[in-house]
Amino acid sequence: MEKFFDYDVLWRFTKEVFKSIGSSDEHAALAATGLLRADLRGIDSHGIARLTGYVRLWEAKRANAQPDIQIVHETPSTGVVDGDGGFGLVVAPFAMNLAISKSRNVGSGWIAVRNSNHFGIAAQHALMALEEDMIGIVMTNASALVAPTFSIERLLGTNPICVAFPAGEEPPFIADLATTTAANGKLEILQRKNMEAPQGWIQDKDGHISTNPHELKAGGALLPLGGDREHGSHKGYALGAIVDIFSGVLSGANYGPWVPPFPAYVPIPENMPGKGIGHFFGAMRIDAFRKADAFKKDMDQWLKRFRMAKPVTGFAQVLVPGDPERHMEAGRRKNGIPLMHAVVEDLDYLAEKFKIQPPGL
Amino acid sequence: MEKFFDYDVLWRFTKEVFKSIGSSDEHAALAATGLLRADLRGIDSHGIARLTGYVRLWEAKRANAQPDIQIVHETPSTGVVDGDGGFGLVVAPFAMNLAISKSRNVGSGWIAVRNSNHFGIAAQHALMALEEDMIGIVMTNASALVAPTFSIERLLGTNPICVAFPAGEEPPFIADLATTTAANGKLEILQRKNMEAPQGWIQDKDGHISTNPHELKAGGALLPLGGDREHGSHKGYALGAIVDIFSGVLSGANYGPWVPPFPAYVPIPENMPGKGIGHFFGAMRIDAFRKADAFKKDMDQWLKRFRMAKPVTGFAQVLVPGDPERHMEAGRRKNGIPLMHAVVEDLDYLAEKFKIQPPGL
Repeated sequence: MEKFFDYDVLWRFTKEVFKSIGSSDEHAALAATGLLRADLRGIDSHGIARLTGYVRLWEAKRANAQPDIQIVHETPSTGVVDGDGGFGLVVAPFAMNLAISKSRNVGSGWIAVRNSNHFGIAAQHALMALEEDMIGIVMTNASALVAPTFSIERLLGTNPICVAFPAGEEPPFIADLATTTAANGKLEILQRKNMEAPQGWIQDKDGHISTNPHELKAGGALLPLGGDREHGSHKGYALGAIVDIFSGVLSGANYGPWVPPFPAYVPIPENMPGKGIGHFFGAMRIDAFRKADAFKKDMDQWLKRFRMAKPVTGFAQVLVPGDPERHMEAGRRKNGIPLMHAVVEDLDYLAEKFKIQPPGL
Repeated sequence: MEKFFDYDVLWRFTKEVFKSIGSSDEHAALAATGLLRADLRGIDSHGIARLTGYVRLWEAKRANAQPDIQIVHETPSTGVVDGDGGFGLVVAPFAMNLAISKSRNVGSGWIAVRNSNHFGIAAQHALMALEEDMIGIVMTNASALVAPTFSIERLLGTNPICVAFPAGEEPPFIADLATTTAANGKLEILQRKNMEAPQGWIQDKDGHISTNPHELKAGGALLPLGGDREHGSHKGYALGAIVDIFSGVLSGANYGPWVPPFPAYVPIPENMPGKGIGHFFGAMRIDAFRKADAFKKDMDQWLKRFRMAKPVTGFAQVLVPGDPERHMEAGRRKNGIPLMHAVVEDLDYLAEKFKIQPPGL
């Protein structure tokens, strides 16, 4: 059911697809790199499986392949970027570079982005800061799938937070987490296999906890991290709300139930208060706080101590955020990226549509 | 079992206690205001119930009542503050004021603090930013009570995150959350009443989920928000770790299992890599991103939309982070602060010890 593809083959194909819909060579390369980082890290729901979705968004004139990305407001350490309706995969690196440049100048840089679209996985953009000996912080809002605690209505997206800290000899700390109990991609897998979901992942249309993954498409909702009030769902809800306000309200993008959806067939909400979807990026220079070497020495000690913690019987090792994805990336760079049959068919369709060579050949 | 006390009475008493152990008039007032904010907001575990604990920490020479708080490193938007072993209730406002001042100058300010002690509730310090039309961000690490996912060992504190956003006509958004499923204070209540804890709050000494609240004192651990891996505990663990690294590693304080404990009878860890406990403070000027009026108008719309969301049958209203604490504060300012008999006895003990008038008279 799965077939393996070389990263380079998929990268060239993805770049050609973006060029076919009008992206510049530079933007197409950026978009391909960003999108495929999700596949490398094992977040298959956010990778090349979404390529047809991006194309449909462009066809529906809901994404702009030739955006004129602008800085609309700035101070020495902050700014707002208008993505001109471009792909988030292209808008995000622009904004993160601006945050990095401000951090170089005054210690930290914070950029809120409006008028953007889905940007792939947050970690991809946070990694840019690590290369500069900076801490990277990335958030984005997304269309509403999540019910706040006590709410029947969906008002928040899965709104991820990513924070990446550099280390010395140890691999870095990279946490990238949706603020829900389970990511939507995991629900989709259960839906496909007709399997039950654990308690605490979803509720039905009346707000009752459900284990039927199909409830999500019948008016139900994903639940904030914690699941229910007794298990701290009000905290997951608060975290998702924080991401929404930084990304959507602070930038002048849409927020809450007004965030436009990714699938082009889903109508855009009425009376949208802002522009597009919103992101938030931060970069902090380590040596704006401490000597980078001293920080990294302590980070190495932190990481070693946690990785060597005594595990519960039956578990091999205590992991540090980013460990599973790093192992996945090493394996997939070597052995290729597995794609399901349905995804390969989608790519073949795009190849035919744009008269480019399909990745299977 | 409970007796009610006027805020003003408790404030004057608390201030006198801090003065009795050597705090300056200004520091004693700051400490009293900070500590009692917890009681006002209903976080009884972090309020005046801890006053004897602060005194014992000072008696054990583990807290300095006359700290010489210093800025040890800074850039235009960042800095590190050394609290000189002072009470966090005094060190935190110093650091938050510095963050606010940097935010005024360059848009945002970020201060990591080392060599501090317990600072009460995070929200108290975040509120300082709201008064300046800024976003307030506050974190702190704490001594290890929490086991990372798959770990038998306790390696993290309950490590709270607070984010506060100002609004216009609506009351502000103030999220202040421990990164565990349940705060330690809630466990203590169950221990006192000999009641079972819900699944997902704690594990026993072998790392198995337990519902016995006494397991925490028998080598068990609190669990990260999410409870277990299937319910997203790796996310709660990541959030607690992020707080630990910002607060402890970035500042040069202690981190992970080396954070010194609050109770003076618990020994200090060996081979501590840093100084005291660590905090992290951020302030961001709203108008460093957008016109403050436009932001507040959108915040009002955000807050109204969430507060009027359709609730699940049986629940009165969907709440916004900060709503329960605001209602609590209004009630307690009017009707007084209820203190349990054991707490009143502690205060009477302090009154006798320092020859000051007990709050009951």
